[in-house]
Amino acid sequence: MLTNQNSLMEGKKNIDFAKVKQEVRVFAPATVANMICGFDILGFAVDFPGDEVFMRRVAKPSVTILAIHGDDGRLPLDPDKNTVSACVKMLLNHLELADSIGVEIELTKHMPIGSGLGSSSASTVAGLFAINSLLGDPLSKEELMPFCVEGERLACGHGHADNVAPALMGGITLIRGYEPLDMISLPVPEDLVAGIVFPQVDVPTRDARQLIKEKVSLKDAVVQWGNIAGLVAGLYRSDYDLISRSMHDVLIEPTRAILIPEFYAMKEIALSCGVLSFGISGSGPSVVAISRGKEAAQQAVDKIQAHLNAHGIESLQFVSSVNAQGPKVINLK
Amino acid sequence: MLTNQNSLMEGKKNIDFAKVKQEVRVFAPATVANMICGFDILGFAVDFPGDEVFMRRVAKPSVTILAIHGDDGRLPLDPDKNTVSACVKMLLNHLELADSIGVEIELTKHMPIGSGLGSSSASTVAGLFAINSLLGDPLSKEELMPFCVEGERLACGHGHADNVAPALMGGITLIRGYEPLDMISLPVPEDLVAGIVFPQVDVPTRDARQLIKEKVSLKDAVVQWGNIAGLVAGLYRSDYDLISRSMHDVLIEPTRAILIPEFYAMKEIALSCGVLSFGISGSGPSVVAISRGKEAAQQAVDKIQAHLNAHGIESLQFVSSVNAQGPKVINLK
Repeated sequence: MLTNQNSLMEGKKNIDFAKVKQEVRVFAPATVANMICGFDILGFAVDFPGDEVFMRRVAKPSVTILAIHGDDGRLPLDPDKNTVSACVKMLLNHLELADSIGVEIELTKHMPIGSGLGSSSASTVAGLFAINSLLGDPLSKEELMPFCVEGERLACGHGHADNVAPALMGGITLIRGYEPLDMISLPVPEDLVAGIVFPQVDVPTRDARQLIKEKVSLKDAVVQWGNIAGLVAGLYRSDYDLISRSMHDVLIEPTRAILIPEFYAMKEIALSCGVLSFGISGSGPSVVAISRGKEAAQQAVDKIQAHLNAHGIESLQFVSSVNAQGPKVINLK
Repeated sequence: MLTNQNSLMEGKKNIDFAKVKQEVRVFAPATVANMICGFDILGFAVDFPGDEVFMRRVAKPSVTILAIHGDDGRLPLDPDKNTVSACVKMLLNHLELADSIGVEIELTKHMPIGSGLGSSSASTVAGLFAINSLLGDPLSKEELMPFCVEGERLACGHGHADNVAPALMGGITLIRGYEPLDMISLPVPEDLVAGIVFPQVDVPTRDARQLIKEKVSLKDAVVQWGNIAGLVAGLYRSDYDLISRSMHDVLIEPTRAILIPEFYAMKEIALSCGVLSFGISGSGPSVVAISRGKEAAQQAVDKIQAHLNAHGIESLQFVSSVNAQGPKVINLK
């Protein structure tokens, strides 16, 4: 899918006011960016965790955040600073509805912030999918994408799409390029399972990006793109062995692993459980074990949690298939 | 396909001497390494040009080069230095036949040397495929691959496989990695055509490699691997638009293009003919226009040749579908 961000955002849509609903509740999934070897270009969605947005139409044409749950007070309530409300306002402006439609928003985070699981993307996507659903779906998912990328830019300081793309589209997504945004949905082998462990230490995304070297050796880059090509081929072939051989990151992991306690011990544990691959989810500190079937992933995350626990590090675990759907409406009336 | 080079080369085969033939003639195809965006990992074979090896069994257990045609006297006749005979000797040694089987070889080059079209690979593959055919096919193509890589190392000073792999296997091949050699055959969209122009100027492979920078910016590398992933996905989807959007080389072409006269003029001409992409074949100086159907490729190479001619540069052109077969036995008795 090739989208021209500017032209999409300039295109107007006629809204049928009879179709506008009163309230909606939407869930959008967490995502694993990079998919271990595909820095900044690959990502996939999981079934859980994720974020929930409840949105209710109000008479006054303004966007407000009523409450945020599960963020320990870390996210802003100011509607211009919160990514959910800011994106909703952006979409209403685009549709020239800012003077006629108002909503109150409640955001419930069922996932940790700063975990490397696309927390801001899940919120952004949930918010945009919610307002679009409330308005009777004037935009397609593809048309929502540029707004999601803008939301990511607002939340993280850069408009990367490797979290928002899978959060919105579901499945495994490839961002081939950014100028213009070119997103491809890749096939998902049926038995692919992700076991995620979030060690509860703080690794801000901005810091994790700044650590990465600006120059890399061509030799390492060739190894990396051989693996990326192998992974894409492996997904099309449902060839789990090829997927396993391909999911190695020689460029980013060595640097980012420094910020993650017990990374190499966790990796050894995961691989000993027979997973296909193990690496960092996004910018970390969450780590992800990719397996064929649930058993190896579950065993890996259990053992990793036990290991972290023995080292005095609290953690959360999530085991999930790849989420094919992306955001979903929980109820709408 | 994952091959362990050492274990394969150590494995012995029993030869049925009753099946050994007297003479064989084999053609092996030229190849376009890199496939524009996939430096050192992608390559494809074409129907023509290519090299022909004629091999005749002789009583004396030795390997000799009787004659080489079409090389303007540039290739060595010394059986230890010529890649064809050296590879044949290597295979006979591996099969413990060096004391019992002898052959005379004639090599006919139907393609230019130092053109960036895998000239040494075509000779290596033709020679190895010929001796294997003469012996009654004791090795599979996959088993021949490590010997082909060794031949490439002998001829070019490095054991890259992005020419020998498609020359041997046919089609489009991905070298996911080298340790161990991991080769994947990618699907070939039916209408893919390559229009090749060889400007008759000298660009030795070694020099072309040495020009390339050892360090690249991570930003450019991300663009490159987004394109590589897009190309692989495009091949699986037979999505010519995606293939076209993906086949751009931001890393290697800017450097290698310096050595190729009129490169950017040729590129402009090719793109104006509606080809999907245009770039350097291997290390050059041959250039390749990839098109959907023959027409655009043929038009592009005709116009490029006319342009080169006007600038006093002689050239050759070849227009071909992707060759699915690799080497073929022309006759065997």
